[in-house]
Amino acid sequence: MDLKDQRVDYNKFELLEDHAGNNPFDLFARWFEDAKQTEPEPNIMTISTADNNHPQTRIVLLKEVLNEEFIFYTNYLSAKGKALAHNPNISILFFWGQQQRQVRIDGTATKVSADMSDEYFYSRPVESQIGAIASTQSAPMKNREELDTKYQELTEFYKSNPIKRPEHWGGYAIKPHTFEFWQGRASRLHDRLVYTDQNGQWVRSRLYP
Amino acid sequence: MDLKDQRVDYNKFELLEDHAGNNPFDLFARWFEDAKQTEPEPNIMTISTADNNHPQTRIVLLKEVLNEEFIFYTNYLSAKGKALAHNPNISILFFWGQQQRQVRIDGTATKVSADMSDEYFYSRPVESQIGAIASTQSAPMKNREELDTKYQELTEFYKSNPIKRPEHWGGYAIKPHTFEFWQGRASRLHDRLVYTDQNGQWVRSRLYP
Repeated sequence: MDLKDQRVDYNKFELLEDHAGNNPFDLFARWFEDAKQTEPEPNIMTISTADNNHPQTRIVLLKEVLNEEFIFYTNYLSAKGKALAHNPNISILFFWGQQQRQVRIDGTATKVSADMSDEYFYSRPVESQIGAIASTQSAPMKNREELDTKYQELTEFYKSNPIKRPEHWGGYAIKPHTFEFWQGRASRLHDRLVYTDQNGQWVRSRLYP
Repeated sequence: MDLKDQRVDYNKFELLEDHAGNNPFDLFARWFEDAKQTEPEPNIMTISTADNNHPQTRIVLLKEVLNEEFIFYTNYLSAKGKALAHNPNISILFFWGQQQRQVRIDGTATKVSADMSDEYFYSRPVESQIGAIASTQSAPMKNREELDTKYQELTEFYKSNPIKRPEHWGGYAIKPHTFEFWQGRASRLHDRLVYTDQNGQWVRSRLYP
């Protein structure tokens, strides 16, 4: 598979200091508004964990930015939950292709309160609530039928029983210590602005592409 | 920023064992062909490194799959180059939104030969070759003008001098030991098939979503 001659020049926008401002959350919010205009699911984010120096990467959905933390929900017993229990360092990537933009965020993840997890869990469609209960996330299964059967049995059961959030299902809040805003530019001379938290102050710098 | 009520149900395709087959490279090639039909840049891949247990994540472009290795090019002195010099473990993610598919690949990265890096470097447009020379990747710079000035000076210089690939610019080949193929399904009951390299044999299993 040879893709060496596939190249797209990026030339839609630029990212200069005047536009960027001093607060990375403000810039993130503005870029997110832009992404909503062009991306089907702008809240898709890639998160990476490192367990025993083995990085692992997967997609989750950003559900909220609250008190300067990025919130997502998952199964705490999943591979990512286990990795975060060992090592709370986490790296986020948003990629908005139509905007030719990336945002990279590095920080640490902690569990949100049970009340907050409850609130979100019960706001989901009933099918997704039952799906969360049916799935022992990342454990092996024999075949698709095993999951479908379990799901159907639970659906039947919960017609006459109240659904309860499993204790091992809930949210993480990621507190950033570094942001990088990347704007694709022509000839691979991209704009990269980095914000680092230095004793509670965001310090901005520009990096070579 | 509240995105809790933003949800897309995934229901385009399914991933069953019969379709998947036994070889993850074959399945990757078929999914890649599908992605070419719907994604503007299907060869966009997110790579994560772990340096001292700090994961870092960024986009690169897949340039080739050769001898069952995934090839990309970069500056060896960039943050990712430094991370890989300390720890060759790497995680790749392809996300093809219109296909509702992810492919996750974990493996190790090694540098490709200088000849191979040469071949690709000189195949790039001259502007990108000069861009690579102009950029001391990930080093701080004062402002955009610093880069633009340097680029213009080099463009002038190379009108009468031959371009040479910088020794610190070249390729990495990633040898996978694990693949996960993820197909979004309704009610978050996604299909996940994992292939692990067990003494040179690919062993397939299905995971709970």
